[in-house]
Amino acid sequence: MPKSERVAVEEPLQITLDGCPVAVVMRTPGHDVDLVRGFLRTEGATSDLSVVRKIDLKSKPNHALVFLEDQHDVDLSRLQRNLFSASSCGICGKASIEAVAMNHPALEDPVRFPKEAVLGTPDRLRRAQATFDATGGLHAAGLFDRKGELLFLREDVGRHNAVDKVIGRALGEGVELAGCFLLVSGRVSFEIMQKALVAGIPLVAAISAPSSLAVEFAEQSGQALVAFLRPPKFNLYAGHLA
Amino acid sequence: MPKSERVAVEEPLQITLDGCPVAVVMRTPGHDVDLVRGFLRTEGATSDLSVVRKIDLKSKPNHALVFLEDQHDVDLSRLQRNLFSASSCGICGKASIEAVAMNHPALEDPVRFPKEAVLGTPDRLRRAQATFDATGGLHAAGLFDRKGELLFLREDVGRHNAVDKVIGRALGEGVELAGCFLLVSGRVSFEIMQKALVAGIPLVAAISAPSSLAVEFAEQSGQALVAFLRPPKFNLYAGHLA
Repeated sequence: MPKSERVAVEEPLQITLDGCPVAVVMRTPGHDVDLVRGFLRTEGATSDLSVVRKIDLKSKPNHALVFLEDQHDVDLSRLQRNLFSASSCGICGKASIEAVAMNHPALEDPVRFPKEAVLGTPDRLRRAQATFDATGGLHAAGLFDRKGELLFLREDVGRHNAVDKVIGRALGEGVELAGCFLLVSGRVSFEIMQKALVAGIPLVAAISAPSSLAVEFAEQSGQALVAFLRPPKFNLYAGHLA
Repeated sequence: MPKSERVAVEEPLQITLDGCPVAVVMRTPGHDVDLVRGFLRTEGATSDLSVVRKIDLKSKPNHALVFLEDQHDVDLSRLQRNLFSASSCGICGKASIEAVAMNHPALEDPVRFPKEAVLGTPDRLRRAQATFDATGGLHAAGLFDRKGELLFLREDVGRHNAVDKVIGRALGEGVELAGCFLLVSGRVSFEIMQKALVAGIPLVAAISAPSSLAVEFAEQSGQALVAFLRPPKFNLYAGHLA
């Protein structure tokens, strides 16, 4: 058996902002612009990605050199502190429990998605997952519209990266995230809910189990949370469907 | 369906050293002393846990107040920087790729474990996993001796926490980790290999896939790496069995 056949590729990506290193994420190479955009957005670095002038992936292997517009309101020291604490896992290293719940308001009057739209998504995700069977080591995240049509799919060795990539792609395409929902192939934890909230996504669905804190977070944030999505069955843990 | 039946409990644990907050890990409550011990060891905070005088879990919910002996060589500022960067995921937030490979020497003449001992472990792990079927959301890690006998099993919503808990428990019991191997229920990534190396564990086995960087790390560190351990089959990605 050739080893490469059964291994999910994992490599570090160092992200710098105007020359200042802010994070290293362990990711599956590919769609790195999506990853960087999504990461900056979902970790709360900036709510306006138009401040990003350029993302240079070519000058140095496994480095994303992000350059900001001259006029921007990103405080690098604050940002670095934030990214250090939040990181690609949303939580690791965060040095006070009080800081765990990022300061983002709950959604008001979030979109309710039809049950039928949600039920069709696992099959669509799986059919689109070209590489899953080959490696057995990739997490997938899909972004769907109100009708349950798949807009974007991304896979990654890291579950949070898959989510960041799909969100980063949607932002790059100008998609309105308040009208989309997210499906993740595995479990759903607190951090996934947090990333979705920061991006404005009203519903997260998962094939597998939620954590208790994911449920609690969804309840407090006005998000809907579906888990154990195994059609025709599913469990609704928070929020509402249409 | 009562919600609690199908949810893996996830709560933050803030770790402070002599009053200084160094990390928050999202974990399944229980065996927190094991978790803290293992975390301090595998993140390279100290190679000698006898400097830990007391771990107080009772004074404040979800806080582990660690108190060190008066005489110790732990530099809190260095440690905090290290933990911020390494965190429970081993990698997140690390601000330079150069820092990814922690400065630990490769194992010399590591113990080789018999193939038969390794093959018996998935079944033993599963039989010991009382809660897995109930929640579907917990990762398991088991520590086994040369004969493949299960020494300790821990489960957690975070795969790294399960590893830290089992290692922390073994250290508390005075077990010689150089003669043990680790089995994890899911995938094996770079960080798991790194934690095992820092603790001196020569072999890591996984039910599911390895990442490419896990394989590379194992090759460089002198560790053995078995993955897709589904008896009677398994793949050996690095090192040797007996």
